[in-house]
Amino acid sequence: MPMLPNPTTHRLEAFSDGVIAIAITLLVLEIGIPDVGAGDLGEALVDQWPSYAAFVLSFVVIGIMWVSHHSMFERIASVDRRLLFLNLSLLLGIAFLPFPTALLAEYVREGGHNSHLAAAIYSATMALIGVAFFMMWRHLYHRPQLLVQGIDCQMARGAMHRSLVGPIVYTLTIGLAFISAVACFVVYGLIALYFAAGPSSRVATPETEGVGASDVDDTGTTKEA
Amino acid sequence: MPMLPNPTTHRLEAFSDGVIAIAITLLVLEIGIPDVGAGDLGEALVDQWPSYAAFVLSFVVIGIMWVSHHSMFERIASVDRRLLFLNLSLLLGIAFLPFPTALLAEYVREGGHNSHLAAAIYSATMALIGVAFFMMWRHLYHRPQLLVQGIDCQMARGAMHRSLVGPIVYTLTIGLAFISAVACFVVYGLIALYFAAGPSSRVATPETEGVGASDVDDTGTTKEA
Amino acid sequence: MPMLPNPTTHRLEAFSDGVIAIAITLLVLEIGIPDVGAGDLGEALVDQWPSYAAFVLSFVVIGIMWVSHHSMFERIASVDRRLLFLNLSLLLGIAFLPFPTALLAEYVREGGHNSHLAAAIYSATMALIGVAFFMMWRHLYHRPQLLVQGIDCQMARGAMHRSLVGPIVYTLTIGLAFISAVACFVVYGLIALYFAAGPSSRVATPETEGVGASDVDDTGTTKEA
Amino acid sequence: MPMLPNPTTHRLEAFSDGVIAIAITLLVLEIGIPDVGAGDLGEALVDQWPSYAAFVLSFVVIGIMWVSHHSMFERIASVDRRLLFLNLSLLLGIAFLPFPTALLAEYVREGGHNSHLAAAIYSATMALIGVAFFMMWRHLYHRPQLLVQGIDCQMARGAMHRSLVGPIVYTLTIGLAFISAVACFVVYGLIALYFAAGPSSRVATPETEGVGASDVDDTGTTKEA
Repeated sequence: MPMLPNPTTHRLEAFSDGVIAIAITLLVLEIGIPDVGAGDLGEALVDQWPSYAAFVLSFVVIGIMWVSHHSMFERIASVDRRLLFLNLSLLLGIAFLPFPTALLAEYVREGGHNSHLAAAIYSATMALIGVAFFMMWRHLYHRPQLLVQGIDCQMARGAMHRSLVGPIVYTLTIGLAFISAVACFVVYGLIALYFAAGPSSRVATPETEGVGASDVDDTGTTKEA
Repeated sequence: MPMLPNPTTHRLEAFSDGVIAIAITLLVLEIGIPDVGAGDLGEALVDQWPSYAAFVLSFVVIGIMWVSHHSMFERIASVDRRLLFLNLSLLLGIAFLPFPTALLAEYVREGGHNSHLAAAIYSATMALIGVAFFMMWRHLYHRPQLLVQGIDCQMARGAMHRSLVGPIVYTLTIGLAFISAVACFVVYGLIALYFAAGPSSRVATPETEGVGASDVDDTGTTKEA
Repeated sequence: MPMLPNPTTHRLEAFSDGVIAIAITLLVLEIGIPDVGAGDLGEALVDQWPSYAAFVLSFVVIGIMWVSHHSMFERIASVDRRLLFLNLSLLLGIAFLPFPTALLAEYVREGGHNSHLAAAIYSATMALIGVAFFMMWRHLYHRPQLLVQGIDCQMARGAMHRSLVGPIVYTLTIGLAFISAVACFVVYGLIALYFAAGPSSRVATPETEGVGASDVDDTGTTKEA
Repeated sequence: MPMLPNPTTHRLEAFSDGVIAIAITLLVLEIGIPDVGAGDLGEALVDQWPSYAAFVLSFVVIGIMWVSHHSMFERIASVDRRLLFLNLSLLLGIAFLPFPTALLAEYVREGGHNSHLAAAIYSATMALIGVAFFMMWRHLYHRPQLLVQGIDCQMARGAMHRSLVGPIVYTLTIGLAFISAVACFVVYGLIALYFAAGPSSRVATPETEGVGASDVDDTGTTKEA
């Protein structure tokens, strides 16, 4: 029987879920209410399309991160100090995302250097978040005793390698950012679709790789977390 | 004995609860503090009645959504990738609601095209949220293996059909919006009352349809999540 | 053995805890950062003392409400639709509190009619929240089957009567508000101290009235909620 | 077998986790989006470096507080009224932190009296939060019956003494604040590193001092909190 996650692991996941849920919901505060006076509201609303697009993009991106984070924690039995602080770095990146999201929404339309810079900052933030995921998997690979029983370090190794895709792709978009912020925005959307709609090898969802706590219930005796 | 929800299902519900709780509480940030200087605060406060009305409306609406969402998840035993992303779409709609709420509050009083547009956007957001609920029930109807043991697909079918009421009614209010935003606002309130005070067939509450996890406790052996 | 709370009751409490935790933490957003340019920051900060006082007051008030709410739910075994919507009304009041808090902070110093009105609105909001608590206890008194086994309706009756203190006292402060907003502010603080520091008959804390789920653990076999 | 935390203890910790998660995530709202028009966004972003630095600092500081708080609650079996209100004071301090963080970010660069004052307020807030931690440990030392079985009051005494480091060091930085706000900022970072990277005697992490609920799982029978 796989070891059950201990209270600390559970609380860390619950705390992380809280931060992720708040960050994803705060995104809406960055969409301003246009003050058009006697002007045309429709025009003003259409004019701020980058705000809606950036909202949807970052919402989906954070949603996918939640899935990945939850999927990782399903495989973790206990947490050491290093993993704790790596996880804190990851949360720092996610909690920071509303800022580059608002920056991108504000400047993507303008073109020119300012739009390039805004897109590059979004790319860099995403790349750094990806690095934090990679570092966490790498630590788990080197400390397999932290994993749920029945998960071997080969699984962690595979996850570690797959988690390099994000940082590499987002780092490449930093280059693209200095050509066109709008093109970069489109590529962000494609990357999100790739992770969301792709095969399970890209995002480990419980459905397809549920070797962790998911199958504990089948014993009919364990209670859920 | 009904299968207990597995950790993934539970965490997804907890995450959704978090997003819904945050969205419902952020609504208050959209009510501005009037700066009247030496003027009359009372007048200024009365003047922003649409802000209070929109706050109460969206609070009740999101509250009802929470009940519906919780009621659905009481019947779900496991979650597949599609359900995960349908649920993310639903949360996207709910997390977005503070925006159309503030838009409605700002423009409903003005009359004219801008007020019509603001109401139509509120209606459309609500209709889309309703579509997400419908899609989730439809998926559960086609994948009854995701349901808690003892819930058959007929139940999911009924819920799927009932979940069409919301999107249909809210889509009709898009038409009304272009006649009168204030009338539309009143109709929103009536729809909310209908869902809140109506018979249990409209909103499935645990009290009246508690065939899911609610009755697990009676065994006296299971512990709750 | 007292019946364990069922999942619905638990989720409703968790959802309520979420709304209360968010409302209490959002209060800080209402304290503005003074922009003094070359002026004296110290003076500007002292000048906004009502913001700090209102922050601390509403923080303590919401904290006490959390204790009362948690204490009530420790005694609830199952939730019916009416209790669900009464609880939603209570949450609506708590989630609204940042608004009258900011209003009070903005206008209490000014004196005159505007300050009276701001204090009266704070009083009225608090009174209405108290009414929601009363209505919930009243419902539990009339539906003792919703209570945890071992809690009789006399306990609910006592709690119902005690829960009248809040609404009555806060309604009286509406009168005081029209004499002096500052005096009213001081009285709010005293009321909060009364509830926080008073005997357990005033606020039912788990320590002194823990007849609910608190003592379940002693059996050594049950797991916690 | 160590006593399991009872529901009240658990809910208090969950509520505290919620407040801490929200406070840590709200920090990002204090970073403004520069409005540079046709100007240089890069310059404007570099110019607001104190906002990023203060964001990272307070994020790490609150993260460490979460670890300390969680570590304390792992050792608490039951909560009395006094501990409840001491914990509320602690949360008040943490929920207030976004304000001194934004103040520091706004004024640290300016130099002169205003910057000194902003740093002193940050120091004082941190010192007071430290005092709340100390008061909680002191109460636990005097009421060892509140501790998890197997934890003796010597452990609480050690934790109480260690918890004096924070308030003492932060009080000393109040003096430094009136010499240089930037120097103070650097020292805050060093203190955070000391607590984060230091030996386990400084911050009690589950890994190294897990005598509480952490080792409950080894019995293979208990479920997690």
